[in-house]
Amino acid sequence: MAPAAENAVVDLLGVLAYGELSAFDRLADDARLAPSLAGRAEMSAMAAVEFGHFRRLADRLLEIGQQPDEAMAPFVAALETFHSLTAPSTWLECVVKAYVGDGMGADFYREVAALVDDATSALIHEVLTDEGRAEFAVREVQAAIAVQPAVAGRLALWARRLVGEAISQTQHVLADRESLMMLLVEGTGGLAGVPALITRITDRHAERMVALGLDS
Amino acid sequence: MAPAAENAVVDLLGVLAYGELSAFDRLADDARLAPSLAGRAEMSAMAAVEFGHFRRLADRLLEIGQQPDEAMAPFVAALETFHSLTAPSTWLECVVKAYVGDGMGADFYREVAALVDDATSALIHEVLTDEGRAEFAVREVQAAIAVQPAVAGRLALWARRLVGEAISQTQHVLADRESLMMLLVEGTGGLAGVPALITRITDRHAERMVALGLDS
Repeated sequence: MAPAAENAVVDLLGVLAYGELSAFDRLADDARLAPSLAGRAEMSAMAAVEFGHFRRLADRLLEIGQQPDEAMAPFVAALETFHSLTAPSTWLECVVKAYVGDGMGADFYREVAALVDDATSALIHEVLTDEGRAEFAVREVQAAIAVQPAVAGRLALWARRLVGEAISQTQHVLADRESLMMLLVEGTGGLAGVPALITRITDRHAERMVALGLDS
Repeated sequence: MAPAAENAVVDLLGVLAYGELSAFDRLADDARLAPSLAGRAEMSAMAAVEFGHFRRLADRLLEIGQQPDEAMAPFVAALETFHSLTAPSTWLECVVKAYVGDGMGADFYREVAALVDDATSALIHEVLTDEGRAEFAVREVQAAIAVQPAVAGRLALWARRLVGEAISQTQHVLADRESLMMLLVEGTGGLAGVPALITRITDRHAERMVALGLDS
């Protein structure tokens, strides 16, 4: 690979690794808002899975001669800002964030994975499986809407906020990390390819909102 | 087994399961105090291991026809009180709690494990392995003492507080759960056996303090 592409792979693994470590941290925190021990255990399980993914990404960075800490460092601020601007205040907000927010992030990284070498791409696909999160979120949200239909409107607004903040922080990261921006622009066939990528991500987001019974 | 012994096993698995779930939760929380991403990853890894242990205990409860939620419920208050009274305010307090506090808890449960059926006992031993925690704690604490010797006195006090609160909450649990109290008293050969058990636990606690370079 050319040095630029190598840098992009290190950046990609770094941002994903910190994404997983911070997802672990936030899901573990959010689990405390669960209305039952069973719900708490279920969200804690998701956190533990994310930690396993972090470990795989950190190991891969070590394999290619990179320190995970250094590879993650450039992305800490953007991801912490995202999480602090989208800290859930209710259990249902946690559930929607775990499904809609993380789902959109995963779609974005899967798009980027198509642009890098096969080994990196395979690892990214492996760590982005959502492990039954859809069933969990749909069950929790639909049960809440059945009891209190007004919940749907509030959660739809929440989902829009998640999407807005995710887009905003992604733009900050791309503006700061030229290697990732170049990977994305060149990999998708020039600037013209980017709108098609955004459309694909938006379509999959809309499918998740439909599954939850929310307007997107 | 007699019904009393069966109740004791359910209680034992229940208190251990909630102990692991709350340890997961607290270690994940404490990891945020780490001074480096590497330290944060290390403590997050311990949290993920605890979650795996929780899962094993919850599965065992299901196998013997018990709902994990119901088995854990009687122990939530005591464990939450312990954690709220021993919330670390520095990284080194987190490290000492993860090694000294959890180590003493593990010693206690291993003692109790000797008093129940072989399958339960084997599972308890399996979920109480401390997975390199000693090396981690000794390294962090000794490095801190080398730089700032006064740290040792403060951490020794902290360890005494952990032990005091652990004993206090254990007494509350035993006072509330007759099955566990009977198991302990009868299993150790009557009330006379309890002091010997306490001595064994205290000795192992003193060994950990020596390893850390702290006065017990």
